[in-house]
Amino acid sequence: MLIVGERINTSRRQINEAVALRDSGFIYSEVKRQLDSGADLIDVNAGSRRDSEVEDLGWLIDVIQHEFPELRLCIDSPNPDTLKQVLEHIRLPPMLNSTTGEKARFKAMAPIIESRECDIIALCMDDRGIPKGADQTVENAVRLVSKLERLGMNRQRIYLDPVIQSVSTSTQAGVLAFDAIDGIRRELEGVHIISGLSNISFGLPNRSLVNRVFLTLTMHAGLDAAILDPSDKKLMSELAAAKVLLNQDPWCQAFTRAFREGKLAP
Amino acid sequence: MLIVGERINTSRRQINEAVALRDSGFIYSEVKRQLDSGADLIDVNAGSRRDSEVEDLGWLIDVIQHEFPELRLCIDSPNPDTLKQVLEHIRLPPMLNSTTGEKARFKAMAPIIESRECDIIALCMDDRGIPKGADQTVENAVRLVSKLERLGMNRQRIYLDPVIQSVSTSTQAGVLAFDAIDGIRRELEGVHIISGLSNISFGLPNRSLVNRVFLTLTMHAGLDAAILDPSDKKLMSELAAAKVLLNQDPWCQAFTRAFREGKLAP
Repeated sequence: MLIVGERINTSRRQINEAVALRDSGFIYSEVKRQLDSGADLIDVNAGSRRDSEVEDLGWLIDVIQHEFPELRLCIDSPNPDTLKQVLEHIRLPPMLNSTTGEKARFKAMAPIIESRECDIIALCMDDRGIPKGADQTVENAVRLVSKLERLGMNRQRIYLDPVIQSVSTSTQAGVLAFDAIDGIRRELEGVHIISGLSNISFGLPNRSLVNRVFLTLTMHAGLDAAILDPSDKKLMSELAAAKVLLNQDPWCQAFTRAFREGKLAP
Repeated sequence: MLIVGERINTSRRQINEAVALRDSGFIYSEVKRQLDSGADLIDVNAGSRRDSEVEDLGWLIDVIQHEFPELRLCIDSPNPDTLKQVLEHIRLPPMLNSTTGEKARFKAMAPIIESRECDIIALCMDDRGIPKGADQTVENAVRLVSKLERLGMNRQRIYLDPVIQSVSTSTQAGVLAFDAIDGIRRELEGVHIISGLSNISFGLPNRSLVNRVFLTLTMHAGLDAAILDPSDKKLMSELAAAKVLLNQDPWCQAFTRAFREGKLAP
């Protein structure tokens, strides 16, 4: 299970302030906190600062790489131009978040993907919009992988995002997500499947509870990467238990170690 | 999801003392607590009091029925003779916990099942012992249902227990359980599938965490009944969220009501 830490996002007030004030110490502590909690990559998103996104993202990348030279970053912007412009800041092969099957967006992302060794997050949607059901998500996934492979990408670098809807607007959203992930897993051997966790619970109370139970169920369906807050102890405890139950933690070693280190919420 | 409350069990010290002292007030409060937390049936087990099991079970049944005349009980003993002897105490059709496919035990249970309208919990094991894999569990299930139907039982009254092993002794135990439940669900339309939650986590730290994540995953596989402690707020919160995600809670009504009533752990 690949964990992409989501805390470096200027939509969070404290991160926004730290970026505005160029407070590299706070950014350092937020990255450190996520790595200590089990993050494999760190997502970096300055999309809420529209007038200075490129500059701010460049600063964030520089600051984080300076302190953590061996850490791979997930560069997060819906704008291909932004991704292109910050590329020169990035030392290790980044994860790019994201492309879709939408014609204009894919076309703009293609030269970036071709020019640079990278992983790519690909949202299973196209110009028809959000998929209407699991079959359409899988169909979009197959088409996207084929297009990315034509650009020379290896499947092991593709992270498909099934585009989760909120269960409060459609009570089928959870089941659709599990079916879509299961379908992608069957159709496309070798790809990764990634998702954020918070869309599913939009509009509900007690969202973090819903999010972590959703994580367990998506892992069972075949999710092998997630964008989440690894400093959420209850979430990471649920994840550790799910790995034990899904035979992803040989001899329960990681689970019992996490317990000994006080990392499991009761 | 049918919830069978498990707290009235003399293996718990407080229940054992209450039974020894014939403290009906404590028994009442423990039943009430489980019903208020969402139990549909109450399991009653005096198996740890070997010398007086029949007498104690009879007393428990009388006390509970006196206070809760409309509550159905799950009478819990591995000993068919015990179940037979307490039958006269029981007013409403009970759930009998349990039979297996073992020749002697099934033969002893058969006349009880034939003599009385009841639900039956049937453990998917036979004289060969614990099933070696999911296929054998499903095979045992098919054979058990066929035998029970020959006694005149309706499938809707059969609760198959897939016999869960501990994940600390076999790291495959979780996956085997999900596969077995999924297999039973495919092979035997109309039966119920029930399980306790605690076997899976035997030998691990933080067992209640593992148990509740296990509940979520078994529900996805097709479990529709569980023997558990409904006064465990974290467990019941996980269950409420799992129902939302598995499309078992239309418009998230039960979930939002539970939130409003302060029944969800954060």
